[in-house]
Amino acid sequence: MSRTMDSHLLAGNRRDAAGLAPKHFGWRIEDKVGVVTLDRPERKNPLTFESYAELRDLFRLLAQADDVRAVVMQGAGENFCSGGDVHEIIGPLTKMTMPDLLTFTRMTGDLVKAMRGCPQPIISAIDGVCAGAGAIIAMSSDLRIGTARSKVAFLFSRVGLAGCDMGACTMLPRIIGQGRASELLFTGRSMSGDEALAWGFYNRIARSDDLHAHAVGWAAELAAGPTFGHAMTKRMLHQEWAMGVDEAIESEAQAQAICMMTQDFHRAYAAFAAKAKPVFEGD
Amino acid sequence: MSRTMDSHLLAGNRRDAAGLAPKHFGWRIEDKVGVVTLDRPERKNPLTFESYAELRDLFRLLAQADDVRAVVMQGAGENFCSGGDVHEIIGPLTKMTMPDLLTFTRMTGDLVKAMRGCPQPIISAIDGVCAGAGAIIAMSSDLRIGTARSKVAFLFSRVGLAGCDMGACTMLPRIIGQGRASELLFTGRSMSGDEALAWGFYNRIARSDDLHAHAVGWAAELAAGPTFGHAMTKRMLHQEWAMGVDEAIESEAQAQAICMMTQDFHRAYAAFAAKAKPVFEGD
Amino acid sequence: MSRTMDSHLLAGNRRDAAGLAPKHFGWRIEDKVGVVTLDRPERKNPLTFESYAELRDLFRLLAQADDVRAVVMQGAGENFCSGGDVHEIIGPLTKMTMPDLLTFTRMTGDLVKAMRGCPQPIISAIDGVCAGAGAIIAMSSDLRIGTARSKVAFLFSRVGLAGCDMGACTMLPRIIGQGRASELLFTGRSMSGDEALAWGFYNRIARSDDLHAHAVGWAAELAAGPTFGHAMTKRMLHQEWAMGVDEAIESEAQAQAICMMTQDFHRAYAAFAAKAKPVFEGD
Repeated sequence: MSRTMDSHLLAGNRRDAAGLAPKHFGWRIEDKVGVVTLDRPERKNPLTFESYAELRDLFRLLAQADDVRAVVMQGAGENFCSGGDVHEIIGPLTKMTMPDLLTFTRMTGDLVKAMRGCPQPIISAIDGVCAGAGAIIAMSSDLRIGTARSKVAFLFSRVGLAGCDMGACTMLPRIIGQGRASELLFTGRSMSGDEALAWGFYNRIARSDDLHAHAVGWAAELAAGPTFGHAMTKRMLHQEWAMGVDEAIESEAQAQAICMMTQDFHRAYAAFAAKAKPVFEGD
Repeated sequence: MSRTMDSHLLAGNRRDAAGLAPKHFGWRIEDKVGVVTLDRPERKNPLTFESYAELRDLFRLLAQADDVRAVVMQGAGENFCSGGDVHEIIGPLTKMTMPDLLTFTRMTGDLVKAMRGCPQPIISAIDGVCAGAGAIIAMSSDLRIGTARSKVAFLFSRVGLAGCDMGACTMLPRIIGQGRASELLFTGRSMSGDEALAWGFYNRIARSDDLHAHAVGWAAELAAGPTFGHAMTKRMLHQEWAMGVDEAIESEAQAQAICMMTQDFHRAYAAFAAKAKPVFEGD
Repeated sequence: MSRTMDSHLLAGNRRDAAGLAPKHFGWRIEDKVGVVTLDRPERKNPLTFESYAELRDLFRLLAQADDVRAVVMQGAGENFCSGGDVHEIIGPLTKMTMPDLLTFTRMTGDLVKAMRGCPQPIISAIDGVCAGAGAIIAMSSDLRIGTARSKVAFLFSRVGLAGCDMGACTMLPRIIGQGRASELLFTGRSMSGDEALAWGFYNRIARSDDLHAHAVGWAAELAAGPTFGHAMTKRMLHQEWAMGVDEAIESEAQAQAICMMTQDFHRAYAAFAAKAKPVFEGD
């Protein structure tokens, strides 16, 4: 296949995230960082059928978007996200048929699959209430910055459901340990900011008034890094989830050999030889 | 199949745990909480061939028992359990043939399988000595409350054996991390109450004189919750142990859609609409 | 097959680690503890193509060596290991073809496979700089002792590569949790001694001037233990990495039944009956 054909193929595959104008949440791009703002602060930023679907579509598109290199998820006002809206989601669900229920739970799961599947690292910036599907979005991010006053609650049992929602039974135990995850999922109780940091759910704690700037700044650092490498790191963390150690080592031998063919690897070596700081371009 | 036939089928499947009178440990039901008391305090509540088998049978029966919604495991007196009795288990094992040894190790493993397989959340209340098979029972529970003075020791290496006993090499690393679990399993050293809390083995620390009441109280809260949902949470934590993220998300989409068909989900929504506290019934 | 034939078979399988004289690192055996010393302190003990290959060969040989029962990995001087040498490894890699790159990444991966595959528990004693492949060697050990001033950095992203190197994306999350591992692998930042202890990466902290003696002493305790059992513990921790709980329990039933046939198990029981301390011999 000729180089020209390749380029056509790739150009045809590309999507431009800058052109997006989602209806159900805020979206802006700043220093190659895409910032999602859940934006119904008077209700603590709940999710609706429409916002679930639109978020899923955004993260699917990001898989092909070259103009976004890292993502921040945040909530408007003093809260992150209160989860599925009681009136707009829970009520209708109580009247649905099984096929419709499964369509809904698969749609919410598809949002998480898209978040785990996109190449950009995702940082959630969590203040105030972070409950239900909000807690799932935080959990499904790659990195998390919280505030001391934030409260993260996997409160599914409080509404009569099971803790197994959108991947919580596989992901939460790997982040905070099986015993602590079991408690949060069975009881639905809130995890405090202190607990979230001590247990490894939060990577950092920030002040509420600095939270969003802090998250965007950290994401900008990642976006200025070797983003082809970052995307491979994220993919392999996902890929090796249920793999044996020896198979994972072979998978990483292949993945890292691919990364050694990138220009960013050469740039880093050239910068080192020149006693300079490397400037990565993501290819 | 007619509704009547279904009901017959289900009635035939039910077992009544209230009728049980185990010979080798205490058993009572209180507020739908089944309380198992290992009860040879003068020997720190060791296990015998008979108590292993009877515990296994109890947890197998609980899979079909509707009158028990949560379980507490505790020891009589000031200790939880000293593990397999040296005279009644270790001695005889040194004289057995391989087929008999395998029958024994499978029986002990079947106790853990039954604990993980029953739908009720199990809380272990751990004071004093919690060693060998006692540590395994604690580990195989869903939640753990300990005391500051308690000592949990996976002491298999101290009796010349390996740390791989009854699932310890798969479960302990997921609860406290691979490095800490490796240390406890290689060395057989005790984990203190402080360590157990800091490492996520214990969910809570209680005073010795309040431990049993605390555990039963917590179990009663779980028993008053949406127990169909709790059972699904427990099942999915088990089911997804070695599953990829995407497959786990699809499994949870199905499992949660099932839970959305329960009355408890409808009760929670009705209670919310009426600004009342939901009363769950487990169906 | 006759007993004599068996003995011939086993004798033919044995290797003698005492006879080794590696060219690219220090090697001595003390109280059945094999001590590997990375020994280019003026460069903070970097790895080269030759030392990678020789380390891999050492750990492969240890699988059959009866004269070494535990291993300590340490660095000469005030540092553990600075990773792959920039001039001797990074530079040449930037000029290689894909087949040669894959040969390299597989060789480094084979070192980790050999460390996880040998029966001896490995303790890394970590002071000062522990970076890149040095961090991987520490991670791939069974136990870790560090110092307060040590710094562990998975700095692959700093040289334009991905964090998925030699099994890091499967092993690091199981040791310190998925969120913390993600941060270290994406950013390449150092983990401090305090963090390493709090997060379960280090089992213990020692003073720099006592670190090597402490590690060898701990390894000697392990070497004096039931080493057949220890080897089975290590094998099963590896074997059950991606296994379901029920399958792991059956695997452990078989593995522990094998261990119950060992002399060390009988020795422990006899010592208990005689109120003496057991002396284990590893068979």
